[in-house]
Amino acid sequence: MKYLLTLSFDGTGFCGWQYQPGARTVQGTLTDACRTVFRCPCSVTGCSRTDSGVHALGFCCTVEPDQKISIPCDRLPLAFASVLPPDVAVLRAEEVPDDFHARYSVLEKEYEYRIYNSPIPDPFTVGREYRFSAPIGTDGIDRMRRAAVFLEGRQDFTSFMASGSKITDAVRTIAFCQVDAEGNRIRVNLAADGFLYNMVRIIVGTLLEVARGIRAPEELPEILAARDRTKAGATAPAHGLYLKRVSYGNEKKGTKADKKPK
Amino acid sequence: MKYLLTLSFDGTGFCGWQYQPGARTVQGTLTDACRTVFRCPCSVTGCSRTDSGVHALGFCCTVEPDQKISIPCDRLPLAFASVLPPDVAVLRAEEVPDDFHARYSVLEKEYEYRIYNSPIPDPFTVGREYRFSAPIGTDGIDRMRRAAVFLEGRQDFTSFMASGSKITDAVRTIAFCQVDAEGNRIRVNLAADGFLYNMVRIIVGTLLEVARGIRAPEELPEILAARDRTKAGATAPAHGLYLKRVSYGNEKKGTKADKKPK
Repeated sequence: MKYLLTLSFDGTGFCGWQYQPGARTVQGTLTDACRTVFRCPCSVTGCSRTDSGVHALGFCCTVEPDQKISIPCDRLPLAFASVLPPDVAVLRAEEVPDDFHARYSVLEKEYEYRIYNSPIPDPFTVGREYRFSAPIGTDGIDRMRRAAVFLEGRQDFTSFMASGSKITDAVRTIAFCQVDAEGNRIRVNLAADGFLYNMVRIIVGTLLEVARGIRAPEELPEILAARDRTKAGATAPAHGLYLKRVSYGNEKKGTKADKKPK
Repeated sequence: MKYLLTLSFDGTGFCGWQYQPGARTVQGTLTDACRTVFRCPCSVTGCSRTDSGVHALGFCCTVEPDQKISIPCDRLPLAFASVLPPDVAVLRAEEVPDDFHARYSVLEKEYEYRIYNSPIPDPFTVGREYRFSAPIGTDGIDRMRRAAVFLEGRQDFTSFMASGSKITDAVRTIAFCQVDAEGNRIRVNLAADGFLYNMVRIIVGTLLEVARGIRAPEELPEILAARDRTKAGATAPAHGLYLKRVSYGNEKKGTKADKKPK
């Protein structure tokens, strides 16, 4: 039996997703909770790693209990709620086929980056938004939007990949890169078939430099063409970043029952 | 010189507003910050006490530096931002006349109570919303609204005052008691000329019992008439409560300059 769980977590108190001995991670915390819920050891596989401080509104992972234990999917969120700490929650659970893979079966992921454009902190969003002090204004938002358009589509994103990454093929397809502003809160939403290490944070850092007039929106094609990390902007901090959605597509996400010939 | 500050604070890490030796309180934290900002001891007077865990979106207090030090009001929020911890912020500062009193000059206060109606916790609002597991639904919201209407107006709220309070005159005027729902989030907004100890939390606790069908909306007039705490519902937890707005009226809030004969 293989379950696909959708999680929400506040990354503030976690050293990221990936299990590390001696560190509090989401994977470690969930693995412990699974042992209680399923009453046996379980294999937990995430859709991606997330950095320390990164949040999730819809992180996906699979859980495979070592023993043949079946719990109805609609009972799992509540079962986990009673054993998980308050900064992580299981929102949904569904059964998936054995060949479903939390990471390799991903079709698209969406990230959201939250910016609070204010010199004064908001006590209710500290650690959950990136507070950017310098005023951006509607003109700055407009510049960010004009720059964001250049990022959409199938392109080589080497310039937006953390230096030192071992990835050789940096071609990814950004379905959309949208900048929304409401009052002094700015959100950048980005969906792609895959993301390079620190890609969203480097994109946001670059867009903020465009917003401030340090770069022109029209520089984006040059930055992309350079395939050089040093041509892009600074890496925006982890605590503004949210993994929002992971899409698998129906053909892979169907339950075993769906796959059986009728 | 007397300043009126408007504060926002996340009450989670504070033992309420009121100074207590050895405890982390908002008043104590702000008094320390004032000493740094004004470079002298300052008297800090709040608009009310708040319980441990209660939050504020617009708490008001006055600050009187012991020495004649004048800092332009528009610079104060930023000056405080550099010395205050991240869970409290000064949003605004204005000069007020010497006879202005943070507590006694209040005309109206507004509280907001936030309920998250879900069996599954939301990691991003733990400690900042009251999670109420039992489903309320649109019918329950409608019942809460019908009950809330009975609370509006000038009435004796003894039944909605924590037992043991020494207040003898429990007559208060509730300007509005409004129940709003969006998805599974419910907000109760209450404005009055004054509030008794635990009044909002007992009102919300009672409205939630009405929502669940434990009481009828039409019981509210009886509960009020009884002037008996035991007739009302349970006290809702502190962490759903926000002091949202304090109104002083222009005649008292005017600066000294405004009061001078022209």
